[in-house]
Amino acid sequence: MTKDELRALVRSIPDYPKPGILFRDITTLLKHPDGFRSLIDAISSRHARSAVSKVAGVEARGFILGAAAAHAIGAGFVPVRKTGKLPGETLAEEYDLEYGTDRVELHVGAIEARERILLVDDLIATGGTADAAITLIERAEGHLVEAYFVIELPELGGRRRLEARGVQVHSLITFDGH
Amino acid sequence: MTKDELRALVRSIPDYPKPGILFRDITTLLKHPDGFRSLIDAISSRHARSAVSKVAGVEARGFILGAAAAHAIGAGFVPVRKTGKLPGETLAEEYDLEYGTDRVELHVGAIEARERILLVDDLIATGGTADAAITLIERAEGHLVEAYFVIELPELGGRRRLEARGVQVHSLITFDGH
Repeated sequence: MTKDELRALVRSIPDYPKPGILFRDITTLLKHPDGFRSLIDAISSRHARSAVSKVAGVEARGFILGAAAAHAIGAGFVPVRKTGKLPGETLAEEYDLEYGTDRVELHVGAIEARERILLVDDLIATGGTADAAITLIERAEGHLVEAYFVIELPELGGRRRLEARGVQVHSLITFDGH
Repeated sequence: MTKDELRALVRSIPDYPKPGILFRDITTLLKHPDGFRSLIDAISSRHARSAVSKVAGVEARGFILGAAAAHAIGAGFVPVRKTGKLPGETLAEEYDLEYGTDRVELHVGAIEARERILLVDDLIATGGTADAAITLIERAEGHLVEAYFVIELPELGGRRRLEARGVQVHSLITFDGH
């Protein structure tokens, strides 16, 4: 499938999760057998097994994309989770939301020093969650090969924020607006 | 990898999430490139593309396993999520917890009538979550081919509960105790 065909499988839901937000819903793409296969192949075809030893995915949609990409590449999968969801000892990183803060965690020992890591998530907006996830990967001394997003909302500046700290950013589809 | 080798990659964490519970942590298996590949191949090798059109995975660990299996089979992926996480119109099903109730949801339109569905989750204990997810699949008129669990705790009776309603249950690894 072409990028335009994949893009057409994304459903736009107005006023979700709140008035004025146009939510980009990838579940309509994920459920499509050829769409899902093309999507995961688009991610995995950029990265050989020799170049990526683990894929990190951010809870929860990043689990879907990251795990399928990890298997396609032949890499391991590492979950980055919300507070209190990982059973073992963790590294934690807070990040700012519009109101208040949130926190992501990574298991101690999930990533070894100098391991080559691909970060995958469904969407980059302001880049706050990805920024915190990348800090966790760096604290674990992993080497981040690329941060891959299926959807990018360029106006919200997430790419600039990650590139400013030296991260290689790639997105498959962009949508204008918030 | 053999089943015993996969089993040895599961970490057991005492007293999590509360005293007296021995938690079976699959993140140590997921992060292992060969272990993760063998695990997903064990799921996907049971199901040809012609026999399964979508894999349903239960939030959140079921997303990791179900999505990778869906890609390996060539099927679409359908998320079964906790309350309020799906942006579109949903079917919802409540189930009992030790104290209180919880709820899972499925998008309307995620599954079409007579579609062949594989349900994947990391663990079956009492089977309450899986039972609710299966009810959602049946309400959507999907045909459940199999409910696949990486880990089964046989003493908690989940298999009997699902088999009593005619579901084909398969697990890869069993652990005694709760």
